[in-house]
Amino acid sequence: MRLILAAGSTETALIDGISAAGASPELMAHTPSGDAEIVVYGAPIRSPVTPVSPTGCVTPAAVTRAVLDVRSVPAIVLDAGMMAETAAPTVDLDADPGADVRESVAVADADRLYERARAFGAALTDDAVMIGETIPGGTTTALGVLTALGEPAGVSSSMRSNPVDLKRRVVEEGIAASGIEPGDCAGSPIEAVELMGDPVQATVAGVASGALEAGIDVTLAGGTQQLAIAALVRHAGMDDGLSIATTAFVAADRGDDLRTAAERLDLALVVTDPGFDGGEHVAMARYCAGEVKEGVGMGGALSLVEPAERDAVRDRFVAVCDRLGVDEVTESTDEFGERSPEVT
Amino acid sequence: MRLILAAGSTETALIDGISAAGASPELMAHTPSGDAEIVVYGAPIRSPVTPVSPTGCVTPAAVTRAVLDVRSVPAIVLDAGMMAETAAPTVDLDADPGADVRESVAVADADRLYERARAFGAALTDDAVMIGETIPGGTTTALGVLTALGEPAGVSSSMRSNPVDLKRRVVEEGIAASGIEPGDCAGSPIEAVELMGDPVQATVAGVASGALEAGIDVTLAGGTQQLAIAALVRHAGMDDGLSIATTAFVAADRGDDLRTAAERLDLALVVTDPGFDGGEHVAMARYCAGEVKEGVGMGGALSLVEPAERDAVRDRFVAVCDRLGVDEVTESTDEFGERSPEVT
Repeated sequence: MRLILAAGSTETALIDGISAAGASPELMAHTPSGDAEIVVYGAPIRSPVTPVSPTGCVTPAAVTRAVLDVRSVPAIVLDAGMMAETAAPTVDLDADPGADVRESVAVADADRLYERARAFGAALTDDAVMIGETIPGGTTTALGVLTALGEPAGVSSSMRSNPVDLKRRVVEEGIAASGIEPGDCAGSPIEAVELMGDPVQATVAGVASGALEAGIDVTLAGGTQQLAIAALVRHAGMDDGLSIATTAFVAADRGDDLRTAAERLDLALVVTDPGFDGGEHVAMARYCAGEVKEGVGMGGALSLVEPAERDAVRDRFVAVCDRLGVDEVTESTDEFGERSPEVT
Repeated sequence: MRLILAAGSTETALIDGISAAGASPELMAHTPSGDAEIVVYGAPIRSPVTPVSPTGCVTPAAVTRAVLDVRSVPAIVLDAGMMAETAAPTVDLDADPGADVRESVAVADADRLYERARAFGAALTDDAVMIGETIPGGTTTALGVLTALGEPAGVSSSMRSNPVDLKRRVVEEGIAASGIEPGDCAGSPIEAVELMGDPVQATVAGVASGALEAGIDVTLAGGTQQLAIAALVRHAGMDDGLSIATTAFVAADRGDDLRTAAERLDLALVVTDPGFDGGEHVAMARYCAGEVKEGVGMGGALSLVEPAERDAVRDRFVAVCDRLGVDEVTESTDEFGERSPEVT
């Protein structure tokens, strides 16, 4: 098993109010780079940013890193169009950041990026891979490609108060700017990404398709964004077995809709609960309050944890948070998560 | 413990007869990229080359990979100036390939590369790191910087018939072209690299120095080339504890000279024998014949292997060779290793 993290960016995230992954446009540009460094090193190395949400919820990269501390799974990062430099080792796929989906074209080189990613996936020597992502604004581009493909779309967010109406307006505007109607890209997944998606989608769909062709087991690690990528894979005509592994937080947020979407796309669905509800640490409380639900391969990484290792993963998560300067809470937070946690 | 592999290139390797790491100039350019892919994936992914010596001896990357298959040590690759692209994830240090040491300047940006590498090393979160290298022509540039520093130099090679005289002539020519006398760069290690070295030296010396400053245990993994890098670290005024871990093949080749050099540079010396002499596989026979002695972190990786794991590492080495298309020998090779092995 190898964990593959596709890290990229889209100017869609710069639209005011779209993304919580980074408190400002500048910080947002650094979130994928910082996430990659946390996954590889356990802390930011060159990135000036520790990705923590405005409410103090630490990036899910900290959960993924905690799992890797307990289970020695090799992890690699693909540069799927990062805006900022990173000290994490990255596979160069010659990817550029994506444009705002409200432009006529969102991913100019979607076809070539998909092909490079597919060749990479097909050449891997692993029996199984799990592919996660980090891209601010990614739930909006997920809605974008699902709309272009004509697939039903539930919209989740890394923000507790999900700006669904804003996302729908942005996608409507993008569909109009691209000169298409919803569903026009059915059976043409690369066109869907080109017009309404982001470079991480082209990368993950490409690696997944290549790996499936090579007989490698593929698990998409994530929630809403990975469902959109699974739809791209299916619209590319790949009907191989494909899994999606996400968190209990996404499952709780989306309800029956998640299972329905997985069935529609013929995906084996794995939902894992990290058991943060018994935890005293502020970061666990933020997750339980639903402020961050998924990302950076979190749900997939958690699915690799054996029952006997769960306590160790929670301990490592606290250790990673400490290293990131996210302090333990000293008073209990209320259950609705409105209190600002201490972040140093 | 983290294994760090610095992969780079120097045009010095293009001098006819200098290097065995690659059978032709074009193949040689791909050797570091291929080595990096073998360390990370266990096989070349994008590299068109499987680094196998002209006599059929597989790259030491296969040994390092075999160790990583048995011991789950995280490994990362630094792009220290590769000529060819690689599918291995690499840390970008903005390094360029080095020039021929016979030019007046061999590494134009040695100072900035050293500083970037030092900042990277100082930011690492590990307790201990082991730093290996892959750069064709690296024993000649090792002789180059040792000469510039005024350090005594033994010269090893990845070739069984070591072209020592050629290397000395090349270095003499480079010293003259740089307008210095041997020893003129004593106490000025970056100048020594700039005039007579290669970008891998600047990178490894920088990472080692930064890591030492941060209180991280550092082991230089390799033989002749790492002794030169250790000299650079010492000439930079760093007197922290520093280890060098190499193979029994280097120790056998250099005799007392290896221990003398380690003592002179105040290095803890670790020598590990992979126990290939009992092995039936052609690649083991080639190593025992002295055709390849070290490289790609091989000696350091072997030093991490517990006695109980040694059989497993040899088994994995055979498995990696099989995947690389280096067949098992069907008749016994003679002990001088003159018979061409079967390579598919």
